[in-house]
Amino acid sequence: MATPPTQGTALLTDHYELTMLQAALQSGTAHRRSVFELFPRRLPEGRRYGVVAGVGRALDAIERFAFDAPTLAFLEEIVDGPTLEWLASYRFSGDVWGYGEGEAYFPFSPLLVVESTFAEAVLLETVLLSIYNHDSAVASAASRMTLAAGDRPCIEMGSRRTHEEAAVAAARAAYVAGFAASSNLAARQRYGVPTTGTSAHSFTLLHDSEADAFRAQVDALGKDTTLLVDTYDVAAAVRLAVETAGPGLGAVRLDSGDLAVLATQVRAQLDALGATGTRIIVTSDLDEHAIAALAAAPVDGYGVGTELVTGSGHPTCGFVYKLVAHESASGEMMSVAKKSVDKISVGGRKYALRRRTASGVAEAEVVGIGHRPVDDGDDRALLVPLVRDGEVVGRESLDDARARHLASRAELPVASQQMSRGEPVIPTVHE
Amino acid sequence: MATPPTQGTALLTDHYELTMLQAALQSGTAHRRSVFELFPRRLPEGRRYGVVAGVGRALDAIERFAFDAPTLAFLEEIVDGPTLEWLASYRFSGDVWGYGEGEAYFPFSPLLVVESTFAEAVLLETVLLSIYNHDSAVASAASRMTLAAGDRPCIEMGSRRTHEEAAVAAARAAYVAGFAASSNLAARQRYGVPTTGTSAHSFTLLHDSEADAFRAQVDALGKDTTLLVDTYDVAAAVRLAVETAGPGLGAVRLDSGDLAVLATQVRAQLDALGATGTRIIVTSDLDEHAIAALAAAPVDGYGVGTELVTGSGHPTCGFVYKLVAHESASGEMMSVAKKSVDKISVGGRKYALRRRTASGVAEAEVVGIGHRPVDDGDDRALLVPLVRDGEVVGRESLDDARARHLASRAELPVASQQMSRGEPVIPTVHE
Repeated sequence: MATPPTQGTALLTDHYELTMLQAALQSGTAHRRSVFELFPRRLPEGRRYGVVAGVGRALDAIERFAFDAPTLAFLEEIVDGPTLEWLASYRFSGDVWGYGEGEAYFPFSPLLVVESTFAEAVLLETVLLSIYNHDSAVASAASRMTLAAGDRPCIEMGSRRTHEEAAVAAARAAYVAGFAASSNLAARQRYGVPTTGTSAHSFTLLHDSEADAFRAQVDALGKDTTLLVDTYDVAAAVRLAVETAGPGLGAVRLDSGDLAVLATQVRAQLDALGATGTRIIVTSDLDEHAIAALAAAPVDGYGVGTELVTGSGHPTCGFVYKLVAHESASGEMMSVAKKSVDKISVGGRKYALRRRTASGVAEAEVVGIGHRPVDDGDDRALLVPLVRDGEVVGRESLDDARARHLASRAELPVASQQMSRGEPVIPTVHE
Repeated sequence: MATPPTQGTALLTDHYELTMLQAALQSGTAHRRSVFELFPRRLPEGRRYGVVAGVGRALDAIERFAFDAPTLAFLEEIVDGPTLEWLASYRFSGDVWGYGEGEAYFPFSPLLVVESTFAEAVLLETVLLSIYNHDSAVASAASRMTLAAGDRPCIEMGSRRTHEEAAVAAARAAYVAGFAASSNLAARQRYGVPTTGTSAHSFTLLHDSEADAFRAQVDALGKDTTLLVDTYDVAAAVRLAVETAGPGLGAVRLDSGDLAVLATQVRAQLDALGATGTRIIVTSDLDEHAIAALAAAPVDGYGVGTELVTGSGHPTCGFVYKLVAHESASGEMMSVAKKSVDKISVGGRKYALRRRTASGVAEAEVVGIGHRPVDDGDDRALLVPLVRDGEVVGRESLDDARARHLASRAELPVASQQMSRGEPVIPTVHE
C-alpha cells in the first residue's frame, strides 16, 4: 500500500554528523561499538502522556539512507576522501529496538535503542529525530482529540496549515492515534489512510446561486455528500440542502460561528425536515478542548486542522538522541552521559516495561539500566525489535499501530482522560 | 544550484479539491475565469510584521503539479472518468502575481493573486497554502531573531525538531530572513544555503578523554573548528581547547547553563589565554527574546533550533486561499466573498502598495480592490509577476530574496524592532 518517496534520506542530516564522522574515522574511534538512545526528557507541559509515531517512516528512512554518486560528489565540499570512501558503502548494519508505533510514552522512555558502530549510528541522528519529533507531536495531540471525541469520528484536514510533506506524515500520525480519515490524498496513496472531502466556500461562490452549487454537488457526488451550509445564511442553506438532496442527505458542515448553538439549531431544523439521519460535521479551529466542549451538542463528527498538525500547542516533542554506552579502548562497553544540571541524560543501555496492576492498569514506566526489569507477572515489555543486522524486521500495518494505540491508551489510569493540565499519569522509575 | 525533489506535487492536495473539480466540470462552471487570493486575516498575536517566504518553492510546486499515469490510476478511486481525462492534461496555464520573497506583510496583504479558470486554480489551493503557511511562519520568526542578534550571525540548527522535509524548507526560509547559515545538508545541496557544524556531546563522550576528542577534532578539521566545551567542566574544557588548538582556535560552543554568565567567564578566560580572536557560539533553546537578552554578553553567534523551526510560538501563519472574483453566467467578472462575522474575506481582485513617507518610512499597506492604488510618489508596488500564461517568470536567487527582506524590514517604522507584543506596525487600508 505504501509508496513512499524514493529519494535518499542521507542528506536530511546535520552538517556536523559528517564532520564528526571524519574526525572519528581519523582518530580511530569511528568503529567503536556504540549505543544511542532516543528519548524525551519530559512530556509537553501539562500533558498526561505522549504517543509514539513515525516508527514505520523511520524504518523507511533507515532503508533509504545511502550515499549515491551525486550525493558523494556534493559532499566533496564537506568531508575528505577517506570519509567519502567510507560513505560510499554505507548501509546501516546494526540493531534497533524501539517502542511500537502508537505506544504511550513518558519522560525518559527509551523510545529507540540503536546499537552499532559510532559511525553508523551517529549518522542517523538527525533524520530519526526529525521523524519522531514531528510524528509523535501530532499523534500525541491527536490522541487527546480522539479521546475527547469519544465515539464520534475525527477527520484530519490540516494539510494546508503545515509543510506539504509534513502534512502527509501528520495525516498518517493522526490515523495511528485514532482519527477516522484525512483530507490528504498523498496519505491515502502512500499509506492507505482513508480520505474524505466535503466542499469549500469557493465552490458555492463560484455558482450563480447556492441552489446551483448544491445541485451540482449532489448531481456529481450523490446525496450522501456533505454540503457546506454557512456561506450565506445557515437556516436557509439547510432548508435548501434538504430540498436538493432529499431527507437522505449525508451530512452538512458548519465552519464558522458558535458551533454548539448552531449545531443545536441545525439538528432541530434537520429533524423537522425529516432528515433525521443527516449528520452534522463541524470544523473551524477545533482542538481537544473545543471538541470536549461540544460533547453535549448534537455533532456527528469533527474536522480538525491547524491544531492537529501543529501538535495543539506543542509542535515538537523535544526528543533527543544521545550516546549512552560505547566500547572503550580496552574493548569493554562503558556507560556514558553528559554531566549537566539542566539537560539530564542517563547513561547505559536501557530496557523498559510498563508495570501494570493485576487488573491491567498501568502503574509505572520501569526503565532498566543495563538489564531487563523483572516482569512481576502483569507487566508488558515495551521494546520490540525493529532492525536486526541492518534488516528491517519491525514493519507492520498502520492498523496494527492503531490497535496498539487504543490498547495502550486504554490501560492508562483514568486521569489520562482529563483534558486539564497535570503531571504524567504514571511515574518513570529507573532501575 | 537548486535540485529540488523531482516528485510530482499533485497529490499534496486535499480530497475535496478533486471532488469539487468533478462537480464543477459536470455543472459547467469549472472553466469560469476565476481569481483566487492567498492572504492573512491577521498577524500572529502580538507580532508587528510578518515575512513572506516559500515563493520560490511554490513556483517549483506549480511547475511540478501534474498527474502522471500512476497518479491517475490511484485517483480512479476518487473521481469519475471525465475528471480523470481532464486531469491527464492538466498544466496550470494562468497568471500568478505575488509579494516578492522576503517582503514584509500585514493583515489582508494579498500575498498571491491566482488568475485562471476555477478548475485550474482551485487545485493549487492546498499545496500553495502548505508552502506559504510553513515557510512564512519560519521566516517571520527568523526575522525577529536576526533583528535581535544585530551584527552577530544566527545559525539555523533545528532540523531535528521538525519534519525532515520541513527542516529543509525551514533552513531556506531562515536564510531568506537573514540567518547566516544552517546545519542542514539538503538545504545546501538544493538551495545553496551555507552550512556549518561543530560537534555533539556524543563525539566527546565517545573518546577516552576530552583531550582525545579535542585533538581528534582539531586534527581532522583544523584549528578554526568550533569545540564544544560543556560536556564536563567548562573552565577545564576551555583551557584544554586552547592548549589543543592554540590561541588561534576558531570558536567554542556553549550548549547549557546560564549562557550570559558562562559567556562572560569564558570570554575572560579565553582572553587571559591569549585566544582573543576565539569566538563564543551559544546554543540551547534560544528564541528572539533569549537572543535579545544576550545582547550585552560577549557572544559571537547564536545557534537556533526548536524555536526557529516551530515559528517561535506560531508554527503556521493562518493564510487562507479564497475565491474573490469569477466570471458569471453572463461572462462578466464579479467579486465574491463568504458572508461571515468571524472569518472576514474581502471580495475582488486586489492590488497593493506600501505607502511610504518622503524619507522612505513605511506608513501603510494600501490594498486596492479592483484597481491599482495611486502611488503618491514615494510608494512601492508590492505585487510582482510570478507566472504568466503558465510560465514561471518570477524565479530569482535566494540572495535576491535576502536583499529584499533586509530592505523591506529596514523601511518599517522603528517600533517593528521591539520584541514586545504589539499591534501591526503599519495599518492596512482598503481602497
